[in-house]
Amino acid sequence: MTGAPTPATLARLADVVGPSHALTDPAAQLPYLTEWRGLWPGHSPMVLRPASADEVSRLLALAHETGTAIVPQSGNTGLAAGQMPDVAGTEVVLSLDRMSKVRNVDAAGNSLTAEAGVTIKAVQDAAAAVDRLFPLSLASEGSARLGGVLSTNAGGVNVLAYGTARQLCLGLEVVLADGRIWSGLRSLRKDNTGYDLKELFLGAEGTLGIITAAVVKLFPRPLRCDTAFVAVPDPRAAVDLLARAQSATGNRLVAFEFLPRLGLEFLIRHMAGRDPLSAPSPWYVLCEAADAPEGSLETLIGLAIERGLATDAVIAQSAAQRAALWSLRENLSESQKFEGGSIKHDVSVPVSKVPEFIAEAEAAVARFLPGARPFPFGHLGDGNVHFNVSQPPGMDKTAYTDMWEAMNEVVFGIVLKHGGSISAEHGIGRLKRHWMSRIKSPVELDLMRGLKHLLDPKGILNPHKVLPE
Amino acid sequence: MTGAPTPATLARLADVVGPSHALTDPAAQLPYLTEWRGLWPGHSPMVLRPASADEVSRLLALAHETGTAIVPQSGNTGLAAGQMPDVAGTEVVLSLDRMSKVRNVDAAGNSLTAEAGVTIKAVQDAAAAVDRLFPLSLASEGSARLGGVLSTNAGGVNVLAYGTARQLCLGLEVVLADGRIWSGLRSLRKDNTGYDLKELFLGAEGTLGIITAAVVKLFPRPLRCDTAFVAVPDPRAAVDLLARAQSATGNRLVAFEFLPRLGLEFLIRHMAGRDPLSAPSPWYVLCEAADAPEGSLETLIGLAIERGLATDAVIAQSAAQRAALWSLRENLSESQKFEGGSIKHDVSVPVSKVPEFIAEAEAAVARFLPGARPFPFGHLGDGNVHFNVSQPPGMDKTAYTDMWEAMNEVVFGIVLKHGGSISAEHGIGRLKRHWMSRIKSPVELDLMRGLKHLLDPKGILNPHKVLPE
Repeated sequence: MTGAPTPATLARLADVVGPSHALTDPAAQLPYLTEWRGLWPGHSPMVLRPASADEVSRLLALAHETGTAIVPQSGNTGLAAGQMPDVAGTEVVLSLDRMSKVRNVDAAGNSLTAEAGVTIKAVQDAAAAVDRLFPLSLASEGSARLGGVLSTNAGGVNVLAYGTARQLCLGLEVVLADGRIWSGLRSLRKDNTGYDLKELFLGAEGTLGIITAAVVKLFPRPLRCDTAFVAVPDPRAAVDLLARAQSATGNRLVAFEFLPRLGLEFLIRHMAGRDPLSAPSPWYVLCEAADAPEGSLETLIGLAIERGLATDAVIAQSAAQRAALWSLRENLSESQKFEGGSIKHDVSVPVSKVPEFIAEAEAAVARFLPGARPFPFGHLGDGNVHFNVSQPPGMDKTAYTDMWEAMNEVVFGIVLKHGGSISAEHGIGRLKRHWMSRIKSPVELDLMRGLKHLLDPKGILNPHKVLPE
Repeated sequence: MTGAPTPATLARLADVVGPSHALTDPAAQLPYLTEWRGLWPGHSPMVLRPASADEVSRLLALAHETGTAIVPQSGNTGLAAGQMPDVAGTEVVLSLDRMSKVRNVDAAGNSLTAEAGVTIKAVQDAAAAVDRLFPLSLASEGSARLGGVLSTNAGGVNVLAYGTARQLCLGLEVVLADGRIWSGLRSLRKDNTGYDLKELFLGAEGTLGIITAAVVKLFPRPLRCDTAFVAVPDPRAAVDLLARAQSATGNRLVAFEFLPRLGLEFLIRHMAGRDPLSAPSPWYVLCEAADAPEGSLETLIGLAIERGLATDAVIAQSAAQRAALWSLRENLSESQKFEGGSIKHDVSVPVSKVPEFIAEAEAAVARFLPGARPFPFGHLGDGNVHFNVSQPPGMDKTAYTDMWEAMNEVVFGIVLKHGGSISAEHGIGRLKRHWMSRIKSPVELDLMRGLKHLLDPKGILNPHKVLPE
């Protein structure tokens, strides 16, 4: 068990990084203790900003010795509050934001080595500078940092073609709970020499070790993108269209996102959105293919319309049109804010089960709270639905968001029935921790606890996160 | 520690599977105790052939209780003897060959669920039957079985586009050392709910648990393949050509294999091979793109010849020509058998380091044993070189193969200098186990031992493999 660090411990920790990088002033701490939704306040006696893996190592050795709880933080953009200390103010925040160097870009080898505190945008830019693509892309990429993205196994819009953060990682450097450094900064495409330790730390949300640097994969930059916005009658047609689009484009789909009519209405109402099509449709798909056979997307859409899988479509004819179509997708979350409270579910089911899931969840929500407005959108190609639910018009917002847990019960029940996940890409953090003992078998929880005890026997790394008490 | 099982223990184990599936007769055991190179003899008091995860569970519970060593075996095609019991005859073999059902094929969801004993060929066929591709492909695919391929994180010729076995796996069912079953047969593309346990068992060579079933990814079948056999002046030109080919084909390269002139000479001499080109070249590349932009491979090769990266090339104009080009690649290993002993190194380095590695290793081999003939070929796109070395002509074969370890020293030293792996795709097994304490840091070995102890506290699963004593 960990406890509040003594003044002497705090002084020793501050010594490692130097006083100017051990923040105790509330104003200086503020950016590290405020998460963007404002739902999860945290307090901390000290925010530490080490400059190197060696400093992280010395900090953790001290924390291990003194039983000091450490909350690793990267870009502070997490959506499950995994990066926030508790409200009691006993946990020390360890920010990686000063460790932001890109150390090496190997264009011929398609890999890039960087410290954990580099932003995703900076990684993308460093790749682009040598005519390569780092495909991980998400709304927060200007702020999100590499260590956090790897620790949460982040997804984003290009998972369909390039995989999640886990699949993009070739090697890691990790500081263990006792301060030892595991140097696994390999850039090999294949290495079958014993257990692949990096897999332990990817997606572990900083509870098993602190990622201080990584090697990630780069890819050739696409020569051409085809982007289409397609009206589809229902989610079943969208799933059929997905399979046909994967075949027709020679498996070159890089994004296959969907949204409901309500989404387009919110965009038009609040975000100066414009309907790209002439008649309303109950559902839409935004799909993009990179370097697909010329004309394959047009041909596909023509066939889809003939077969009733689509009713209308527009294909971007310029970069500006492409950007306009993507802005519809990117503004969806924001548009909901103007319609009162939104209860969110970042869930996944097998791709082929998405239509049943949506139909059943919409019906269940209607029974649970008549007038509530399901707003399911997201990464259909991955089976990842952001099943957000906007409040009934006119209802008190707080009264609505007070129903968060009860609404989760309704939606997650259907997710689990279809073999789905209650956290497809955002992680568990603090937000969904209480669900773990309900969604995991005793065997699985036992294995997880065993790993936690093996790697962090004193429980100092990101306590009270991920695992149930 | 484990010991020789008593007759009573053997009788209890046999009871679980029934007497006809508990093999003690030497003739019946033979196929399970002979590995194809004939280098690693093994003996066993009993070969068990369970029919279900439940039977595997009961067998392991018994083994755990009695301290009986269990060697899991799948297709018995492993190249590191990980599937072989020891010579003392104290280890019981557990074959998964009766568990060979494909349970479910989800074409819309691009996934397939099968038992561990299904052959790779059967998985490929089941995928093809619904117009999908299971891309894992290796020479032994008719015999290799899914559980073994996942347990060794096998590679093959399509890793460049589709990844290794690890990346192709969505979910696992695993029987733990104490007999408990972990049911992780998920088919989700995204699931960030706690530690991703399947990653522990993938590539662990049966030392942490026994995989009894898996969900794997399927892909759309390519509509068109372009295959070229290209003469290149040296490995540096081949690496340059690789990067250009990835860009020019819109990242649609699915294979990029290379071989030396000596390889083509052996093929012509012993395998009725025919030189597809009119003049000899020191090196060759066999590259294949799936659904690349029409004509892109021709254009690329034209440019490459202009720039001196290639000197000649042939592009397959028919399925028969494509098959003929691939047969050159597939017969390479076999062709070496006619030239006496071959000392093998399945190694990888970062792709951009392949040229330096080959030059240095060839020079070092020439110093070590003048007349020895380096025969480096393989998966250039993955940085994976099968750095085989054929014996000097006329030398006694046994005298040559007695130099196996000494030659390994020479070659692996250069691999390690370049940050490479001494086992890119074959695993550690028994073959390379003695190298582990030399290639891994104390921290890494400590973590591996910790995992082994956590998951198999009595050390009954595939003892004396992977980890150093």
